[in-house]
Amino acid sequence: MTQDATPAPLIPATSWAIIDSTLREGEQFARGNFKRDDKIEIARALDAFGVEFIEVTTPMVSQQTHDDIRRLTSLGLRSRFLTHVRCTMEDVQRAADTGVHGLDLLFGTSSFLREFSHGKSIPQIITAAEKVIGWLRDHHPDLQLRFSAEDTFRSEETDLMAVYRAVSDMGVHRVGLADTVGVATPRQVYALVREVRKVIAPDCGIEFHGHNDTGCAVSNAYEAVEAGATHIDTTILGIGERNGITPLGGFLARMFTFDPQGLMDKYQLPLLPELDNMIARMVGLPIPWNNYLTGEFAYNHKAGMHLKAIYLNPGAYEVIPPELFGVGRSIQAASKITGKHAIAFRARELGLHYGEDALRRVTDHIKALAEDGDLDDAHLEQVLREWVSA
Amino acid sequence: MTQDATPAPLIPATSWAIIDSTLREGEQFARGNFKRDDKIEIARALDAFGVEFIEVTTPMVSQQTHDDIRRLTSLGLRSRFLTHVRCTMEDVQRAADTGVHGLDLLFGTSSFLREFSHGKSIPQIITAAEKVIGWLRDHHPDLQLRFSAEDTFRSEETDLMAVYRAVSDMGVHRVGLADTVGVATPRQVYALVREVRKVIAPDCGIEFHGHNDTGCAVSNAYEAVEAGATHIDTTILGIGERNGITPLGGFLARMFTFDPQGLMDKYQLPLLPELDNMIARMVGLPIPWNNYLTGEFAYNHKAGMHLKAIYLNPGAYEVIPPELFGVGRSIQAASKITGKHAIAFRARELGLHYGEDALRRVTDHIKALAEDGDLDDAHLEQVLREWVSA
Repeated sequence: MTQDATPAPLIPATSWAIIDSTLREGEQFARGNFKRDDKIEIARALDAFGVEFIEVTTPMVSQQTHDDIRRLTSLGLRSRFLTHVRCTMEDVQRAADTGVHGLDLLFGTSSFLREFSHGKSIPQIITAAEKVIGWLRDHHPDLQLRFSAEDTFRSEETDLMAVYRAVSDMGVHRVGLADTVGVATPRQVYALVREVRKVIAPDCGIEFHGHNDTGCAVSNAYEAVEAGATHIDTTILGIGERNGITPLGGFLARMFTFDPQGLMDKYQLPLLPELDNMIARMVGLPIPWNNYLTGEFAYNHKAGMHLKAIYLNPGAYEVIPPELFGVGRSIQAASKITGKHAIAFRARELGLHYGEDALRRVTDHIKALAEDGDLDDAHLEQVLREWVSA
Repeated sequence: MTQDATPAPLIPATSWAIIDSTLREGEQFARGNFKRDDKIEIARALDAFGVEFIEVTTPMVSQQTHDDIRRLTSLGLRSRFLTHVRCTMEDVQRAADTGVHGLDLLFGTSSFLREFSHGKSIPQIITAAEKVIGWLRDHHPDLQLRFSAEDTFRSEETDLMAVYRAVSDMGVHRVGLADTVGVATPRQVYALVREVRKVIAPDCGIEFHGHNDTGCAVSNAYEAVEAGATHIDTTILGIGERNGITPLGGFLARMFTFDPQGLMDKYQLPLLPELDNMIARMVGLPIPWNNYLTGEFAYNHKAGMHLKAIYLNPGAYEVIPPELFGVGRSIQAASKITGKHAIAFRARELGLHYGEDALRRVTDHIKALAEDGDLDDAHLEQVLREWVSA
């Protein structure tokens, strides 16, 4: 459990890829309605960052959306484009000529969606998939195909396994597990990915898509990878239906702890603040103040015990060095919960030297003052200069 | 995996209690510096909500903080007060007479904190704990005692087990696992709680405290409970050092799915928006727009496929009924990704009846219009009235 030694990565960053869905799931966010120029800017930024795949809204939306996809796929980016379509002939025929690298097919398998959405049974789903996938393999053999069971985690496991086995046999390149309503738990995701692995072809990938309604979108994505998932859906800032899905930054923070170098090799991590700021601007909302890595206070240190250690070794209270993600650290030294080590450090910076008793007295004085509000730098300096000669 | 039947709760809400630490960990948040009146308001609100325990900042901070604790503990609330102190004679002697129900003692056990914070070895930690706990049991036998190993998840497991076994033998009522830097994973938390359970007394509780730096604070708290933890630390909106800890709302959203009735019996869930708004006001920040349950868009439904099902049964895309937490649902029916079912529904509300072909045409028209921005209600109504006679 110690991290003193850093041998081979626990989970190599080469074992998984990101499908960033800001341009699809992100358009299901209340404020997500990207115009062509926005889409191009987002795609270029994701490409510069290094995400492997970019998923875009179905061309079924409108002629405009259809044309936008063609524009995006002609940009010559290294990131590969996917589009997300219902598993119907109408949708895939419309999507197949947009220049995308692959199609992400979906079909609801839970009793909720079978009853209240499309009304089909499991054998009917498999039959429908067979027709669509068969046509695609005949007419568009170069397209990478994914088949996802929408609302996977409220579906019967026997139903799921029948569907996944069937579509794997039909030759899809990837199956998808979708926690559409954000109800799955980490150990449940881990267990299900392991089971799915057993019924699909060895070279068939596994994708995980997780909503965050119950706070598990990051951990579920991570547990999916640990269990053998190969592709994780993210969006910038996690935007999506309701309160969204696994955020790109949060997922990278999580995975960083298992293979820092691997992550740095794959992605331009210091560009993360640019991505987060770009989407915040486009949706007209601030980066949440509690956001991973780029939130205003993500690296704010305040308690005296923490400050003492942070001055000696930031790793004592930081699991990820902020500079690797292009962000900074802040030290809040003059609050009511500060301590004598933090005060001594600031005093030394000012060339002031306090003995032990004097340090304790000035620290107590500063803490008492700060009961009415933190001291700003000037006020702290003033107190330290006054009290050193007292 | 299906939720059609709802038999005995998977995880009874009676098996765990909340220690809300808004008044301790929350004061380590950059903007958390609560005055006496704030503290009283927060404590009364938490008590009205029904949290079992309220943890407050150590009286070591200042005379003001000490006096505030005495004021809080004299309010006559049902929630019990705890204060969080270093495991030293000086701290516990100061804290013992504040009227609190218990003391939450902490000591860093990781190599990081042993080297860069207090400089003590594991045997020295146990010896120090023995002195403090022995004195407390002799002089304050009514105080509930917790001993927490700070930075638990970067500590050596053998060290941890030695410490937990020792303090359990000394008679503490609860041991604490603290993911101080937010690095633990759900399955790791689950496994460690199970191991700890084996070395402590059967009636000794287990508390989990988790930071959210890598996005697992909610899921780790849940996995801790599943593994046998009895107490979970939360704060309102998750405020705390850096980007904070397990948020009260997020944790309740998670646990709701396992025992809805049990949660409703324990807590006044519809008061959650008041709690979240109160803290947002006090720290001078908005509720994050992606917040659990109370975020602006937590129950916003937009994609056409979702809307179709939501109209028939909200449970199709909502795992928690919003009204149980005092919040509402919004249906975004006139976006570019809407669908004919949502449009038909709105038309029927206006007393307009579309045939299948006309419905498809007006839906396509609305989607194309919405490429330039969602239609507001008036615009949508205007289009629907114009096109019905077209």
